[in-house]
Amino acid sequence: MYGYFGTMKAKPGHRDAVVEILVSGAGGLKAAGAHLYVVGVSDTDEQTIFVNEVWESKEHHDASLQLPETRAAIATAMPMLTGEFSSTEARIVGGLGV
Amino acid sequence: MYGYFGTMKAKPGHRDAVVEILVSGAGGLKAAGAHLYVVGVSDTDEQTIFVNEVWESKEHHDASLQLPETRAAIATAMPMLTGEFSSTEARIVGGLGV
Repeated sequence: MYGYFGTMKAKPGHRDAVVEILVSGAGGLKAAGAHLYVVGVSDTDEQTIFVNEVWESKEHHDASLQLPETRAAIATAMPMLTGEFSSTEARIVGGLGV
Repeated sequence: MYGYFGTMKAKPGHRDAVVEILVSGAGGLKAAGAHLYVVGVSDTDEQTIFVNEVWESKEHHDASLQLPETRAAIATAMPMLTGEFSSTEARIVGGLGV
């Protein structure tokens, strides 16, 4: 399994709108090979959004970015983001919930 | 829900032993309030271990560190680690799998 831990920053006042887009689309990712798609925010920083993803494979994750609904969500969210992203990839070994 | 994304580094040659300790104890954390406890490794760095956790609350996570089995696991793993840790906390909003 493939793990992706990403962060993004929303422009001031737009965090919750971006979170809503991310959370509302998460359920539909299961059919595309997502095991987990967990969205979080910081209690001390009003701009940062965390997304923790576990996919069947990196290929499944990459392919999901081309889905029409994903592309639409990205297009809607992008103007609300600052452009600062970080990401870390992992090979998921196991644990609780995967 | 409380999210904790941590990394640790194993001393050379000890990563898999530490991963085994983490994964083997993960199932038992459910009763302590863990929703997810996902262990990953890097494909490009043989020392780094990722742990992604989602707990009912920060208090549940903190309390779990005092459990006898957790303390025993930490005591066993610690000599195999370099001492380099990182962690990020999040408030989990939702998504797939939580």
